[in-house]
Amino acid sequence: MMNKKRLRRRQRGEGKEATETKPVWVGLMGGGYKPLAEADLAQIYETALAVLAEIGLAEPIPALLEVVLPRGCVLGENGRLCFPRSLVEAAIAHSPKQIIYHAPNPNNDQVLDGNTMLFGTSGEGVTILDYKTRRYRPSTLLDLYDAGRLVDQLEHIHTFGQPFIASEFSHDLLTHDINVAYAELAATNKPFHMGLGTAAHVDRIIAMFDLFAGGKGEFVKRPFCSFGGCPIVSPLTFARDSLEVMMRCAELGITYDVAVAAQAGATAPAALAGCLVQTFAETLACLTVTYLINPQAPMLFGMWPFISDLRTGAFTGGGAEQTLVMAATAQLCAHYGLVSSVASGMTDANMPDGQAGFEKGISTVVAALAGGNSISPYPGAVGSLMGSSLEAFLIDNEMMGMVMRVVRGIEVDESTLSFAVIRETVNGPGHYLGNPQTIDLMKSEFLYPTLADRRDTTTWEEAGSPTIYERAHRRVRTMLRDYYPAYIAPELDRQIRAQFDIRLPMEMMRVGNGRW
Amino acid sequence: MMNKKRLRRRQRGEGKEATETKPVWVGLMGGGYKPLAEADLAQIYETALAVLAEIGLAEPIPALLEVVLPRGCVLGENGRLCFPRSLVEAAIAHSPKQIIYHAPNPNNDQVLDGNTMLFGTSGEGVTILDYKTRRYRPSTLLDLYDAGRLVDQLEHIHTFGQPFIASEFSHDLLTHDINVAYAELAATNKPFHMGLGTAAHVDRIIAMFDLFAGGKGEFVKRPFCSFGGCPIVSPLTFARDSLEVMMRCAELGITYDVAVAAQAGATAPAALAGCLVQTFAETLACLTVTYLINPQAPMLFGMWPFISDLRTGAFTGGGAEQTLVMAATAQLCAHYGLVSSVASGMTDANMPDGQAGFEKGISTVVAALAGGNSISPYPGAVGSLMGSSLEAFLIDNEMMGMVMRVVRGIEVDESTLSFAVIRETVNGPGHYLGNPQTIDLMKSEFLYPTLADRRDTTTWEEAGSPTIYERAHRRVRTMLRDYYPAYIAPELDRQIRAQFDIRLPMEMMRVGNGRW
Repeated sequence: MMNKKRLRRRQRGEGKEATETKPVWVGLMGGGYKPLAEADLAQIYETALAVLAEIGLAEPIPALLEVVLPRGCVLGENGRLCFPRSLVEAAIAHSPKQIIYHAPNPNNDQVLDGNTMLFGTSGEGVTILDYKTRRYRPSTLLDLYDAGRLVDQLEHIHTFGQPFIASEFSHDLLTHDINVAYAELAATNKPFHMGLGTAAHVDRIIAMFDLFAGGKGEFVKRPFCSFGGCPIVSPLTFARDSLEVMMRCAELGITYDVAVAAQAGATAPAALAGCLVQTFAETLACLTVTYLINPQAPMLFGMWPFISDLRTGAFTGGGAEQTLVMAATAQLCAHYGLVSSVASGMTDANMPDGQAGFEKGISTVVAALAGGNSISPYPGAVGSLMGSSLEAFLIDNEMMGMVMRVVRGIEVDESTLSFAVIRETVNGPGHYLGNPQTIDLMKSEFLYPTLADRRDTTTWEEAGSPTIYERAHRRVRTMLRDYYPAYIAPELDRQIRAQFDIRLPMEMMRVGNGRW
Repeated sequence: MMNKKRLRRRQRGEGKEATETKPVWVGLMGGGYKPLAEADLAQIYETALAVLAEIGLAEPIPALLEVVLPRGCVLGENGRLCFPRSLVEAAIAHSPKQIIYHAPNPNNDQVLDGNTMLFGTSGEGVTILDYKTRRYRPSTLLDLYDAGRLVDQLEHIHTFGQPFIASEFSHDLLTHDINVAYAELAATNKPFHMGLGTAAHVDRIIAMFDLFAGGKGEFVKRPFCSFGGCPIVSPLTFARDSLEVMMRCAELGITYDVAVAAQAGATAPAALAGCLVQTFAETLACLTVTYLINPQAPMLFGMWPFISDLRTGAFTGGGAEQTLVMAATAQLCAHYGLVSSVASGMTDANMPDGQAGFEKGISTVVAALAGGNSISPYPGAVGSLMGSSLEAFLIDNEMMGMVMRVVRGIEVDESTLSFAVIRETVNGPGHYLGNPQTIDLMKSEFLYPTLADRRDTTTWEEAGSPTIYERAHRRVRTMLRDYYPAYIAPELDRQIRAQFDIRLPMEMMRVGNGRW
């Protein structure tokens, strides 16, 4: 498959480390699964463009109209803003074909293009599942910091999106947002993200990041944090606050991470195809606005059609229909050259149990095989995105490694076809255990889990018959007790704390604080 | 996608029940995922044919040589039997393109062809996981009977393959095999299978099935049970006992369910492509033997490359490499017109926990999307096929329903694209909850789980925060306490018990026996 060839060239070409000896690596390419036929893609595209041109979006704000009306958008008598086809197609054509996720440490920078995939966290859930009581409690700033420290250590999570809010500051959004930004910067050296609903906070947070980056104006040159949100209230209505954030990011030329989450049967058509049409139209509206403000501004194309359980009207993220529409968005974006953000893993299970396992696994492998770029399998998240479990971050990390190995695929060439090895073996030892090929491939062909069990049943019983959840809990404690990265140097930390209202106590950022 | 069109024609055409109002149905078609490029398929095919022609198989038995040598097979000086290319290609060309799984109740007959898929159990594990103690104990005849009664009630399991042995009879194989056959017939009205390692038992078991079918010679007209096994010891050696069973089934013209399970890195090359080559060659040898005995005899093409954990040499069924090689076999068989048997779900987790969930879910959705026909997601199985958990049958049934809905895909046409529905809604109520389309699609577009949780976290906490494993346990008890189908009528049962040594006590086959 061309896919494989490109993959191997990429593998050989990128010399940072000897990727050829690793079973998985960042930059693997999906696309082998095509949920929709080309004709289906075209029909969805055409209908979405018709929705934008003929139905349009309600509640455009004056600052938006000022930019888009002179460029050809049309405000109807009903107050809806329509986007002519030519404008939308120009936005698609000019959208960046490559987006770089910068990281605080440039070695962790990630490139998104074509069908290359990576995995990140996401969420902004409001609760955390307590291991001992099996009950949810409101999530705090310390929980966010802990999740960041965990993710920083987990191999198959490449970016850190804000998994929960700091609920103790929900009455004071500036303090909340500043502290989320600080906690994430303190916890991880991977590219990170945060949700943001107030445009005025963008510049304040960037001022803090500039201190880290070495001076005013430095952050936007290598924006190691991206801001995200949803500038749309479905169906087809602008949401002022997030729209303003998106517009400010576009002005600054930094990546905005949109997530348009119309819900099939509630705020989008129940027909899956129609749900795709509407969400595509809504996300294209965001792309076109971004393009009209700043043609160079990258927008991560997050069309996230969500599913309702029609018996209750509630969001349900764990079912097959959710898997399907997300796979379709991955394919749609790849087909039209939009760098995609795709969600998976939004299990409805309230614990990291067998249900969480199969709902997360199925949706994630399908999203990756369909060619999603920035995939959030919502590691850690349980309860239909209501909250997270720290243990689940570790379990999901194993699952994501497995998915990456599936995406890598099977290399077929004269050497791997093994005709000579087969002949030698049947004429020789009768098994392959000591064959040089076997030893050679041991580390490059096979991914060995680090938490998932491969013990025989007897050994497992002797260890007390633990589930992966129980094993994860023990490991979470060790990982959080011993790992306090010093990404913010002490002198810089003093500067930041002098200028910003930082609520993460310094004593909680050191080994031996007794929390774990 | 043509796939979808064919699917919908099939859906409309098969009038047994109003499938159009159901979210999933038997006969869905995979094939949307292509793990290998066409050139890769061709290389694997060519190399496998070269292996058969130039390396051949060891230890052919005299009865086999008698059939195949006059037809062009060649016995080398080294005692290996080689298959000329033309013979293997004739066997492939003549292999039935459709296989029917007959059922004791003809309403449950299943058809396998093209990319149509169904799900069955499998295994022949030797232990069962006890819920309370979390320990494995040897499986018994009653366990097998119970598993059959469960599967008979589970919607997304379409055939019942023997999940475990009756270990109390392992010293007496005839009693064992007769009782396995009886217990399966008593427990389910779905098509069923059993493993068989002694050719002489075939006719004895058929004599019993003939009583059920209404007279001597009746069973083979509608064989509602298929026999299976592995006539190969890898690498490339015949296994006398199972070979004799396969040859007897071919003579009788009944489906033989082969499972050739060479293990990468131990009994097959560690390179995944080479492992595919060898397993393909071994299974093609079985197909060719079957063809030479009886060109009309159907053989279910079960090339089952297995994976070793090269750190220990032990079988590991839960990893990504296992998922990949099985998906490749599904594609390979579909490409060359062989009706395939494909395995998935062979988790290495020792309990139905989160690990079991994602390993089973990922491998099963990938196998189904790759176009496998008779897929065994090993429902119930845990511990690298060492045993089963009754609770896991229920959990896996949910997972398999989800996979079927993914395989069904998204229908795209003018109605589902929903342009008019979107326009009405934004100009009207502003939501889709009461829209006729929503109500219309509620039962046909969406699959609602019956065991998987969709409760909100508060309701779940109030119910005691149960995992799916805990909920499954409660349901297993109800399902097994109340469900004793009378598939074997009393008079027939007396006849069978008069002629065969049946060890399943009649009092254990009635409600109120106190076991559950």
